Amino acid sequence: IVVSSLCLALPLDDEREVLIRKEEMLQIGGELLLTEQEELANEKLKALKKVEINEAMKKNQFPPSMHFFRAKKLIEESKVFHVLKKMPKGAALHLHDFGILSVDWLVRNVTYRPHCHLCFTPSGNLKFRFADPAPPTPKPEDCSEWILLEKYRRQLQNVTEFDNSLLQNFTLVLENPERAYSDQAVIWTRFENIFITVDGLVHYAPVFREYFARGLQEFYEDNVQYLELRATLYPVYELNGQTYDQEWSLKTYQEVAQKFARDHPDFIGVKIIYSDHRMKDVSHIAKSVQTAMNLKVKFPEIMAGFDLVGQEDKGHSLWQLKEALLFPATQGFDLPYFFHAGETDWQGTPIDENILDALILNTTRIGHGFALSRHPMARNISWNRDIPIEVCPISNQVLQLVSDLRNHPAASLMASGHPMVVSSDDPSVFGAKGLSYDFYEVFMAIGGMKADLRTLKQLALNSIKYSSLSADKKKTTEEVWQKKWDKFVELAGQIKL
Amino acid sequence: IVVSSLCLALPLDDEREVLIRKEEMLQIGGELLLTEQEELANEKLKALKKVEINEAMKKNQFPPSMHFFRAKKLIEESKVFHVLKKMPKGAALHLHDFGILSVDWLVRNVTYRPHCHLCFTPSGNLKFRFADPAPPTPKPEDCSEWILLEKYRRQLQNVTEFDNSLLQNFTLVLENPERAYSDQAVIWTRFENIFITVDGLVHYAPVFREYFARGLQEFYEDNVQYLELRATLYPVYELNGQTYDQEWSLKTYQEVAQKFARDHPDFIGVKIIYSDHRMKDVSHIAKSVQTAMNLKVKFPEIMAGFDLVGQEDKGHSLWQLKEALLFPATQGFDLPYFFHAGETDWQGTPIDENILDALILNTTRIGHGFALSRHPMARNISWNRDIPIEVCPISNQVLQLVSDLRNHPAASLMASGHPMVVSSDDPSVFGAKGLSYDFYEVFMAIGGMKADLRTLKQLALNSIKYSSLSADKKKTTEEVWQKKWDKFVELAGQIKL
Ligand SMILES: [Zn+2]
Ligand SMILES: [Zn+2]
Repeated sequence: IVVSSLCLALPLDDEREVLIRKEEMLQIGGELLLTEQEELANEKLKALKKVEINEAMKKNQFPPSMHFFRAKKLIEESKVFHVLKKMPKGAALHLHDFGILSVDWLVRNVTYRPHCHLCFTPSGNLKFRFADPAPPTPKPEDCSEWILLEKYRRQLQNVTEFDNSLLQNFTLVLENPERAYSDQAVIWTRFENIFITVDGLVHYAPVFREYFARGLQEFYEDNVQYLELRATLYPVYELNGQTYDQEWSLKTYQEVAQKFARDHPDFIGVKIIYSDHRMKDVSHIAKSVQTAMNLKVKFPEIMAGFDLVGQEDKGHSLWQLKEALLFPATQGFDLPYFFHAGETDWQGTPIDENILDALILNTTRIGHGFALSRHPMARNISWNRDIPIEVCPISNQVLQLVSDLRNHPAASLMASGHPMVVSSDDPSVFGAKGLSYDFYEVFMAIGGMKADLRTLKQLALNSIKYSSLSADKKKTTEEVWQKKWDKFVELAGQIKL
Repeated sequence: IVVSSLCLALPLDDEREVLIRKEEMLQIGGELLLTEQEELANEKLKALKKVEINEAMKKNQFPPSMHFFRAKKLIEESKVFHVLKKMPKGAALHLHDFGILSVDWLVRNVTYRPHCHLCFTPSGNLKFRFADPAPPTPKPEDCSEWILLEKYRRQLQNVTEFDNSLLQNFTLVLENPERAYSDQAVIWTRFENIFITVDGLVHYAPVFREYFARGLQEFYEDNVQYLELRATLYPVYELNGQTYDQEWSLKTYQEVAQKFARDHPDFIGVKIIYSDHRMKDVSHIAKSVQTAMNLKVKFPEIMAGFDLVGQEDKGHSLWQLKEALLFPATQGFDLPYFFHAGETDWQGTPIDENILDALILNTTRIGHGFALSRHPMARNISWNRDIPIEVCPISNQVLQLVSDLRNHPAASLMASGHPMVVSSDDPSVFGAKGLSYDFYEVFMAIGGMKADLRTLKQLALNSIKYSSLSADKKKTTEEVWQKKWDKFVELAGQIKL
């Protein structure tokens, strides 16, 4: 942060001009010089944005101030949003394995495959499992007997209704989220239950491969060139009950990603951040860290590092797990960390120290970093060491950290050009898709009225810069991206106002 | 903001200790050294706070995260709140003339006085006027005929119901604020209508005096030692229709305040910040500035300076009014400004520049400064020139700038020790009282878990330091405050846990 004071030597109007200009330079992308083509595109984009914000002010209906479940339709009517969809966004660096693909395919296709069983838990959740010829064994704890879905559907009066209820079980979306999700505990339980529900579907080997390929496709279509995926690498299974280990999963991810990149030369690829659950105790995490180290040695190409997932407020703090997390360093082993940290509203609690501890533990990026602006030392370290936060606005809103996204704490960080990237966490669970919805929220609200094409360009460039790609690969990625960017800019310059 | 980086020479635990300690030192009051007595009181207070926050986490019911209208009852059950009520809070520096006194007295006493007339506007609002022997003239624009309230009440079946409806007309409080006040435009209209409604009551000369004296009493009882009041100085009138000018009002304020201070030797007094409405055009504001200058010469003791009030998003920007606002400086006249600025969620709009312009126009303090953390240059200037923001959390929440007060942007400013004071804006209109409710929100939420007695002491000291009192008077005030503080600390040290 640049420190300055009023320069009283200048006439007041000039002084004011200087100050405003300085603030514009400080914001993300503020120092980028645009080409003539880009300037033209920027004028068009700014004009579209101005119209939509003025409209929103008049109607008192601003999508980023509304809950995303209600805002989504309005966002899809936005011309700015349609421009953002076409924009090459670089990398999506904060995503989770089974939150990247719209759930329709799971319901309409996967659950219709042969040998799909389901059971009901006492609390009304579903579990699935493919098995043949024998039914799945053992019966999952805390669930009814396995029912063959094909048979179950045949008994139903209204299959459409059932399928719609499945859809609802696979996302958090519903009409009155404020009422249905009375607090963070409730929504986090529902959130984690969704992953338990889809677990048996997505870990069935053929589905596992296809889910991932289709997920890549969805991001590719949203003009994303590269992904980093937090993956828990839980066992994948075959119809006969055979299961595969983490290496198999990682290898499969690699194969699918490579094939996808071959089929789409303008797609760079994927890296995996192996992630365990922060509720587990330190001895368990120690094992996972060891696994991560082994995987890193065996799969140096795809394996980016390690993270911990789950609700921070309820799990272990990073410091409670430090023995496990410091182990690689004591061995002189470089295991990059990508810690979720500061995904909390509870400032000053032990959990809130995660944001400092992530930095102390040498994290490469900070997942969310929602609390960063409330930690001046952490903010300085993040700034000085150029460690970005991964801002996922829709996730933060749906998981009830903030309601009006204009108040997202990243606003002050964006205003001072703090290192950051935009990502979408689990778009399918939030009813979003790809990266564009989150870019919309950042562009329209968190960045304020003055966020413009510079902001977007810088965010895209940041996503490549802060990725785990090698220096060489970053260069290639930037070249691929730049070509797409030039086309995008040309297109945007032709917008009729 | 201090810039630092990880000091890798230290063992990790020590390094972490140092960082955490540094953040604790940076927060407001973090550098204060407490006496033994204060340490004891602090332990008690921290224990109370911890219990209440843990309880809130368990119940998922944290008052600062709830709308104040629903939170109020819970706050009143809080032991921390009861301690805060007893705490000597120093000065309340951001208050408006007719928002300082609980409205019960207006309804139960003032509207029962003889010769009180009322009329109804087409939009369902009320206006009042005392007059005798002739009825009030002229009939106010856009209102029914004047009705003598005494007569009107006699016709009513249910007077209690009517009086309760009056109470509701005098505050914003109701059961479902989110539904009733669908957006900021709606609540600002209702907010300003309240002042129009009470206008005819509070500007009746006998009521004017008594309202002010009772307002002082209410703040005095809430352990506030000194007030600065934004006052519009609208004409005060007598029963016979005679009206008084601004000088009369200011003189009356001075007399009432002096009498109150004589009767309460531990009360320091009041200063007035003459305030006009920002909707008015520049020629009108120029006249008001001239009036402010004249008043400052005639009443140097009580007249502190000038401000503009009303919804920022709808009014003129400070820069639009600059001709008027720069006039005193061109005359070499020192007219201190106390501009409301940055009371907006609309980052990057022309109105949002008010926060920079307030500083450029040499404001002494910033009213609200809600947008400050999104303006890195303004933040630096405010820091370097030691110009505080006046944080009014309940006002910001009720007027829909932020819902969960943990997300109030002052959180990041508190965390880095930014100059600030706490105030309550219009407590009576929000259903609050005095200063304690706002201190509760700041202490429990905006300051985070680690806000402690140091924070509170610094905020009280700040309120004296940043007041418009002379250096001498500040010293006296601090002495008066210190005596009360010592007693408070002794009392707090005796709390049974
Ligand atoms: Zn995540
Ligand atoms: Zn105010």
